[in-house]
Amino acid sequence: MNKYVIGLDYGSDSCRAVVINVATGEEQASSVKYYTRWKKGLYCNPSKNQFRQHPFDYIEALEVSVREALAKCAPDVAPNVVGIAFDTTGSTPVLIDKEGLPLALRPEFKENPNAMFVLWKDHTAIQEAAEINELAKKWEVDYTAYEGGIYSSEWVWAKMLHILREDPSIRSVAYGWIEHCDWMPALLTGKTKPAEIVRGRCAAGHKAMWLEEWGGLPSEEFLCALDPLLKGMRSHLFEKTYPGNTRVGTLTEEWASRLGLSKQVAVAVGAFDCHYGAVGAEIVPGAFVRVIGTSTCDIMVCSYEEMNNRLIPGICGQVDGSVIPGMVGLEAGQSAFGDLYAWFKDVLSWPVKQLVSKSRLIDDTVKEQLIEEITERIIPELSSEAENIPVEESVLLATDWVNGRRTPDANQLVKGTITGLTLGSSAPLIFRALVEATAFGSKAIVDRFIENGIKINEVIGIGGISLKSPFVMQTLADVLGMPIKVARSEQACAFGSAMFAAVAAGCYATVEEAQQAMGQGFAKEYYPSEKSHAFYMKKYKEYLKLGKLTEENFFTER
Amino acid sequence: MNKYVIGLDYGSDSCRAVVINVATGEEQASSVKYYTRWKKGLYCNPSKNQFRQHPFDYIEALEVSVREALAKCAPDVAPNVVGIAFDTTGSTPVLIDKEGLPLALRPEFKENPNAMFVLWKDHTAIQEAAEINELAKKWEVDYTAYEGGIYSSEWVWAKMLHILREDPSIRSVAYGWIEHCDWMPALLTGKTKPAEIVRGRCAAGHKAMWLEEWGGLPSEEFLCALDPLLKGMRSHLFEKTYPGNTRVGTLTEEWASRLGLSKQVAVAVGAFDCHYGAVGAEIVPGAFVRVIGTSTCDIMVCSYEEMNNRLIPGICGQVDGSVIPGMVGLEAGQSAFGDLYAWFKDVLSWPVKQLVSKSRLIDDTVKEQLIEEITERIIPELSSEAENIPVEESVLLATDWVNGRRTPDANQLVKGTITGLTLGSSAPLIFRALVEATAFGSKAIVDRFIENGIKINEVIGIGGISLKSPFVMQTLADVLGMPIKVARSEQACAFGSAMFAAVAAGCYATVEEAQQAMGQGFAKEYYPSEKSHAFYMKKYKEYLKLGKLTEENFFTER
Repeated sequence: MNKYVIGLDYGSDSCRAVVINVATGEEQASSVKYYTRWKKGLYCNPSKNQFRQHPFDYIEALEVSVREALAKCAPDVAPNVVGIAFDTTGSTPVLIDKEGLPLALRPEFKENPNAMFVLWKDHTAIQEAAEINELAKKWEVDYTAYEGGIYSSEWVWAKMLHILREDPSIRSVAYGWIEHCDWMPALLTGKTKPAEIVRGRCAAGHKAMWLEEWGGLPSEEFLCALDPLLKGMRSHLFEKTYPGNTRVGTLTEEWASRLGLSKQVAVAVGAFDCHYGAVGAEIVPGAFVRVIGTSTCDIMVCSYEEMNNRLIPGICGQVDGSVIPGMVGLEAGQSAFGDLYAWFKDVLSWPVKQLVSKSRLIDDTVKEQLIEEITERIIPELSSEAENIPVEESVLLATDWVNGRRTPDANQLVKGTITGLTLGSSAPLIFRALVEATAFGSKAIVDRFIENGIKINEVIGIGGISLKSPFVMQTLADVLGMPIKVARSEQACAFGSAMFAAVAAGCYATVEEAQQAMGQGFAKEYYPSEKSHAFYMKKYKEYLKLGKLTEENFFTER
Repeated sequence: MNKYVIGLDYGSDSCRAVVINVATGEEQASSVKYYTRWKKGLYCNPSKNQFRQHPFDYIEALEVSVREALAKCAPDVAPNVVGIAFDTTGSTPVLIDKEGLPLALRPEFKENPNAMFVLWKDHTAIQEAAEINELAKKWEVDYTAYEGGIYSSEWVWAKMLHILREDPSIRSVAYGWIEHCDWMPALLTGKTKPAEIVRGRCAAGHKAMWLEEWGGLPSEEFLCALDPLLKGMRSHLFEKTYPGNTRVGTLTEEWASRLGLSKQVAVAVGAFDCHYGAVGAEIVPGAFVRVIGTSTCDIMVCSYEEMNNRLIPGICGQVDGSVIPGMVGLEAGQSAFGDLYAWFKDVLSWPVKQLVSKSRLIDDTVKEQLIEEITERIIPELSSEAENIPVEESVLLATDWVNGRRTPDANQLVKGTITGLTLGSSAPLIFRALVEATAFGSKAIVDRFIENGIKINEVIGIGGISLKSPFVMQTLADVLGMPIKVARSEQACAFGSAMFAAVAAGCYATVEEAQQAMGQGFAKEYYPSEKSHAFYMKKYKEYLKLGKLTEENFFTER
């Protein structure tokens, strides 16, 4: 009899459920559910970089996507699902009360953005991150050492402290916090009480400064020195963390019924999307795996021998077992990749959105459709025009820091720049410069790994952009001067989750075995053009110079 | 009995004739004629920055606009016209033969762009301008000293030399050259022979390096050292030049008949549009008058005492009597003002232009109209949104150099930059930064005057943008920290011409008297907000820094 697992991938805007055959890796069905409240822009304030998500969005998305995916499968599939696993964005934490309940699930906080999950890209905690960095550099132990040496405002401690400071109304009930990737397994297995929650190694090690060698989380003294508001919270959190091959438990009766699954279904430890995505895309040592979407998350795995206890400065972290148990997982990433293009699309669609609706030339009935049609066609149209610009005529220069810089050397204060503008700087020329900027940002990361002795033989791309944007991928290959393989599956992250679900359910002994059996291979490979690479190497120096000048003169605390 | 004058204003695309009552300044009628050949794009090559205009375009536009304007007036007006005067773009010169005929009027050259007027914005002579600058800095006399110290490719000597080098076919008949503003009075009075032509002080002093103190035009030795092709030409040109209150003569019988005017009509010396426009807008010492359109032309007048023989570096020129006789006329300007907004409009309208035409949602019949409607509404819509952004939330920073920098300190190599970009940088925020950038560029010019001891009490705006864009004008007032008056007349340049016509006809003894009697006053005054000015003074420092960093690191010959 066939066995199945469900991989759940919570992205920034939607949740995807994929049902997979454990033996062959064959996808049976999938379904996507967009977050209802989020789509309406609720609880967010983009101009202040405040991005919050309501736990109800996650719960709704889970039920709808799983039920819809199962409904597309043959009737024998649901009863034979043996495991389920989650990957989510991160660091996306929420404050919880003494019962482990995310505060927004308490009636008094149900509309309070500070009681909700703080999405990875929320940058409200810049000040707190700066304070953590300052204190860490003075402390006897540098707790940021395994997180690239720079703590980010995108990470849990900065975010939780920021909210505690900003919102006195929640302080008395804020007992601890939980990452989205840990909350899903906790919820489904009923292990939601703070003392019972099974915490994943990935989130804890990469974002919460957890390290076994220094006794887990940073010391109570450190946290209190940071701010007395954190007093006592450490003891409500955790000492141990677990890699993804761990089984958290099985479905509660309630959740088995809500999802239409058996109570025997094993639930695996959750992790961040790109970590599981890298596994889904068949990561091996020497492969630089990039989940390329709104931002990038870049993952490598490295044997203990190759790492040789080295610390790589300025990346997002190096955590034993955060990707594949028994190897060090390395993480880096760009804060904005597809988001940079989406930003430009938003700017360009402004007149359409503002003015089509006011026009008397066309029927009201088609206005919304027309706006949507034009908006959706902007990036494809720009890509096809930009692609035809000869490389040497691409004279605009941009930096990709419209959402700060995650790596190398995190700095949330930096911002994007476009220079070289003339009266002839058309929309496609600007778009081309933006695409190059994202590729230059990628090269800066790749160079950081190589300079620190980590071999890179190939790049593996996963995520929407790698499959949908040949122009972007070719530019990336040209800039990096490296071939790029694109994972065949459009759902590499959900695939990775499914592999961990299969291991947690006992179907495979190791993650590597699951990869062997379930991996889907590659759809396409991009090879760099020598001529373009030579041109881009000169332009990359200008990119570095533009970045340095703007960072030093405009985007540094002064 | 009422007397009337006709002011003629030759712009880049069209000629405007305005009939004015000499006693009251009341406008009787006006008419505009677009240049026929120019409108078809003949003789131009925008990709090479070649812009040429045929003398027939000017002649046609003169007859049509004057006859149409007179036809709109009461029958007693035409017989009582006593004066006519011209302003034109410049430097817009043409090569002439021994008889003073523009070469394109000779049958063999009638289709040769090199035999036509070279419009101000033609940039084919960049190489020649560079050579003039190089030679001038080595020469015993720096002939560029009264033209801001940097000779431009937009000016007569560079243009004439470029054509002589490029086109051997015209060399043997090219006897001299004439500016458009001098050719019109010459033509109408019949004083077209090279020795008879009455040359205006404005064009000669601002663009041809003419200065009484060094004996008129640059020496024969200088010109021959520049290129032996110029040998002998100086002696066919002129030693004396005349301010605009000079009467060149009266209409020839032919032209009196062609225009439907009396032979007694006085014709005044011509000048450039912004110089006469400044007079039309009632320039006085201490007023900084700006013609604000695609670019700006900035004019001041200054007494000999206040000038005190000072040279102001990095402006476009300082010429005795180029604006008002008996005072020094000072010229500066920004290469892109409205053009910067028009560029952003072009970028934003790209999706509309590309995608509306491809849509199947709407009828083909309305597509063109819809595209035009949206495109035309972009800037008004952006303005009204940008206006509502609180000044302290205007966080983007831009430079205005999308068409190089004319003043202060001409540099055609510099380009525009936008920095501070984030995912929240909306189209109105960007537009606001662009508007601020044009205002900062204005402040840099104003400061250059003030630093050199020229007092500025007020700003007077004329031209399309000053009447049509309250948001731009308010921002300009806030940045400069000065009140701005906007001239009531939409035809300030033609009004200025009319004032000179009245003086040349003997109706007033001085230009100042004509201004007093005929001036139309101001439509509006903008007062700076103290709060905004304080904010902008900080931001202006950042603008200067951004400009300096990008100029030194990216836009300098290296």
